[in-house]
Amino acid sequence: MKKITPKAMCAWIPKREDETHKGDYGRVLIVAGNKQFGGAAIMAAEACVKSGAGLTTVASDSVNRPALQTRIPECMFIDYENITSLTEQISQFDTILIGPGLGLDTNAEELFRLVLQNATEKQQIIIDGDGITIYAKGKIPHPPASLTFTPHAGEWERLKALAPGAETATEIAMTLDATLVLKGHRTKVYAGESAWQNIYGTPAMATGGMGDTLAGTICGLMAQTEKPIIGTLAAVFLHSYIGEILAKKRYVVLPTEIAEELPTYLKIFSETDEHA
Amino acid sequence: MKKITPKAMCAWIPKREDETHKGDYGRVLIVAGNKQFGGAAIMAAEACVKSGAGLTTVASDSVNRPALQTRIPECMFIDYENITSLTEQISQFDTILIGPGLGLDTNAEELFRLVLQNATEKQQIIIDGDGITIYAKGKIPHPPASLTFTPHAGEWERLKALAPGAETATEIAMTLDATLVLKGHRTKVYAGESAWQNIYGTPAMATGGMGDTLAGTICGLMAQTEKPIIGTLAAVFLHSYIGEILAKKRYVVLPTEIAEELPTYLKIFSETDEHA
Amino acid sequence: MKKITPKAMCAWIPKREDETHKGDYGRVLIVAGNKQFGGAAIMAAEACVKSGAGLTTVASDSVNRPALQTRIPECMFIDYENITSLTEQISQFDTILIGPGLGLDTNAEELFRLVLQNATEKQQIIIDGDGITIYAKGKIPHPPASLTFTPHAGEWERLKALAPGAETATEIAMTLDATLVLKGHRTKVYAGESAWQNIYGTPAMATGGMGDTLAGTICGLMAQTEKPIIGTLAAVFLHSYIGEILAKKRYVVLPTEIAEELPTYLKIFSETDEHA
Amino acid sequence: MKKITPKAMCAWIPKREDETHKGDYGRVLIVAGNKQFGGAAIMAAEACVKSGAGLTTVASDSVNRPALQTRIPECMFIDYENITSLTEQISQFDTILIGPGLGLDTNAEELFRLVLQNATEKQQIIIDGDGITIYAKGKIPHPPASLTFTPHAGEWERLKALAPGAETATEIAMTLDATLVLKGHRTKVYAGESAWQNIYGTPAMATGGMGDTLAGTICGLMAQTEKPIIGTLAAVFLHSYIGEILAKKRYVVLPTEIAEELPTYLKIFSETDEHA
Repeated sequence: MKKITPKAMCAWIPKREDETHKGDYGRVLIVAGNKQFGGAAIMAAEACVKSGAGLTTVASDSVNRPALQTRIPECMFIDYENITSLTEQISQFDTILIGPGLGLDTNAEELFRLVLQNATEKQQIIIDGDGITIYAKGKIPHPPASLTFTPHAGEWERLKALAPGAETATEIAMTLDATLVLKGHRTKVYAGESAWQNIYGTPAMATGGMGDTLAGTICGLMAQTEKPIIGTLAAVFLHSYIGEILAKKRYVVLPTEIAEELPTYLKIFSETDEHA
Repeated sequence: MKKITPKAMCAWIPKREDETHKGDYGRVLIVAGNKQFGGAAIMAAEACVKSGAGLTTVASDSVNRPALQTRIPECMFIDYENITSLTEQISQFDTILIGPGLGLDTNAEELFRLVLQNATEKQQIIIDGDGITIYAKGKIPHPPASLTFTPHAGEWERLKALAPGAETATEIAMTLDATLVLKGHRTKVYAGESAWQNIYGTPAMATGGMGDTLAGTICGLMAQTEKPIIGTLAAVFLHSYIGEILAKKRYVVLPTEIAEELPTYLKIFSETDEHA
Repeated sequence: MKKITPKAMCAWIPKREDETHKGDYGRVLIVAGNKQFGGAAIMAAEACVKSGAGLTTVASDSVNRPALQTRIPECMFIDYENITSLTEQISQFDTILIGPGLGLDTNAEELFRLVLQNATEKQQIIIDGDGITIYAKGKIPHPPASLTFTPHAGEWERLKALAPGAETATEIAMTLDATLVLKGHRTKVYAGESAWQNIYGTPAMATGGMGDTLAGTICGLMAQTEKPIIGTLAAVFLHSYIGEILAKKRYVVLPTEIAEELPTYLKIFSETDEHA
Repeated sequence: MKKITPKAMCAWIPKREDETHKGDYGRVLIVAGNKQFGGAAIMAAEACVKSGAGLTTVASDSVNRPALQTRIPECMFIDYENITSLTEQISQFDTILIGPGLGLDTNAEELFRLVLQNATEKQQIIIDGDGITIYAKGKIPHPPASLTFTPHAGEWERLKALAPGAETATEIAMTLDATLVLKGHRTKVYAGESAWQNIYGTPAMATGGMGDTLAGTICGLMAQTEKPIIGTLAAVFLHSYIGEILAKKRYVVLPTEIAEELPTYLKIFSETDEHA
């Protein structure tokens, strides 16, 4: 199992070229946040924008619009009850995150199904939080898009049920035809035959919303890197690396504080060139 | 009467262990804030999250959702008029704060009664602000849960009426079968036969909302410490200790400024080990 | 005409005594902000809270609640269309600011009349902005409460019409039986036979909302000082003094930036004792 | 083609004179932001206020009020569905920005037409974003007001269709009877026979909302400078100059971070006198 190291990060984060524009840095849709868990949408969106994604749109319950627009006006907003508008726009995005704070009721399931049904082959879909629990019910087929799952321990147990014969995480990832990000004290990533382990992380990060911030960082970086797995690994690294640094002076590190530092640490790693 | 000292604090705030997750740091419900006093819910919630509580949910009037989600997206939100949803979820929490800015009308009383009726033996309930005034009417029986009251001088007078024969604060605490936090220039805490006095505090803290921040800190730390009284004492200490430090450069210290500093001072005291 | 000097400020801002509580630092009501000018209510409220007022309540249009509660949760909120609730509470306040961003329509006039009609002899009322224009129509009698007007040049012309025989500002102030704060490059204050001139102020402060912040500072300090005129003078001084300091590094100084610095400069002047 | 240099900037940004008031620094109306793109209105408004405009009003969808008032209470707000109120007020403004995040539906077109039809000869109108796409349809005549267009590459293609015979940007600008700001890696400005090229800008600025912030800075500075072209050039310069400075420590620079620095850099250039 490969370690995710700072040295690898230096190779993964590209310098931005002159003459590029926002369209070159990804169009991300985040489908997240019901009336109870609106903060999940906000935290994911902040991480996505601050990771440098070119254009970020959040589809959420309309009660979450004021808080989202206040905290991160750089984001666009779709009321997810406006199914027609949402459906029409899905094909415009290259990267979609679905699940944080979505809830588990019938509406959430229908919304989840809608997004997956309208996804296309060229899209990357990250399924997080409640989205994993819904997908794990096994009623929705694998879309033509590429999938990445980001389960915590409980969601991982549910997801395993979809791959009854598989024994190792690698086998499960291959059965699910997806990348797996198994979150924990030392997060592990499985893609195809490959596996990586994170070497950072601190219990000061054990607080609600931390996974939403990670998911937002993954979709933001995935939209900017040539290979999706590179964006995923970089996000896992940065999220915990920044968490450890902040934890030197804080008993608890809030998810939004990690998002705040993304532009700074991305800059540092983009300038330390280890490509050669 | 014991003094609440910095030395004691060092023993009270544990280092976080590796391999722990958010569920290990408490599930807190804060029932607070009507249409007029929504800030009370926000200030309590910020203090709770920044004290390190693992998962914090606020049940409040729906008009308070946007401000709460903007200031502290790490929090979850229940519209307290959705009685069914609230009732179903009460048993999930280990610590409940009820009362800040709740108001005194019939709806507030019914909500208060609902929460206490659904509380279970394993839960800690902190009753603050308007919750104390409602409880002091004597119509609601002591729930199986453990109780902590945090009255200011006026609320303390009302609460005394429930223990007509008792003469000292210790006697009243025992009659009420509750921990008492008597707020004032030098706050006192009574639990069973024990009594403690705070040695910090400044008149720069004499401003609206300061008690809401204290209540939020108490429930946040109580959810993380082995014994509830330890979390209570640590909260009383930190709240006033931070207040004094900030008051060196401010004529008035705002409650939200104290919450902001909680992660920093918790870190300092968690690392100065006086357990031995 | 006396100058408002830093030396005078040192005598005006008292140190806070131990054993005091929030009720000792004033109960302020701010009636301000319609659907178009909600920011006026917010800016006044922030200045009031940060000047150290003990308890601040804003009565405004309900559309302004989320922004106000987000920016300054220390504040309480009354929907000013809830006339019954507002009327019942008026007598609880010792200081009332009315007028910033109130608008000039029939509803604003009725609200203005309601507040003045319910004011009592012991209250201080500061009338600012649109409140001055409404009062200048001459339809509303002087309430038993004490009045302070804070007109800018245009509002001053309207207000003069109420004192047709009077020639000097002092005469007008006496005819109106009110304190006058004539805002301008060098603001002047008239109370009874006395007159003061401010010696600070910068064109970097020439931006919308600056008067709302001044009005909020006046009511906040008036609620804390023994004589209302002292609070008024101190507010005029601090507002422009802070503005000049910030303008050393800013082309334009925003009103909310001045409010932000109030606790710091109040602290400085409270500790430089010139009482002797 | 002239370069837009720091030396020129020093001549362009005037020192503010004593005895001036907010009315001397412009009255700006920003018509922007539908339900999906509310952030565009917020970002433009923040840039406008922080560039020093005396009075800034935003006309937008009412769902955007809470976020706008929270982030920049210095702004005033008109619900753009209240057509009567908006129409009555249009003549009060000297500078109007229309288009950011306005959308392209029938309502947006009608609103756009309404504003242009009510514009007067003395007004400056900046047309940005969706406003350009609407204007490019050729159905709305040039109003008596002066026009400035701020197209990105795609919008530029659409706008060209209105000047079929013209070959160069200068010819198109003259055919359209407008100033052109062609946004890109090195933004170009065309006005009459003159043309200027910006020499700053960084791909770290390639993120959603950057154009909204530029448009807001243009209208804010245009309202304060004697000649509108001076305000336009100064805005183009400052926006990218600040962007480059922030990009030294950030992988991505957010639009709102640029607005935040406007008062500081305007101060620096206003004090370095190169008029002689």
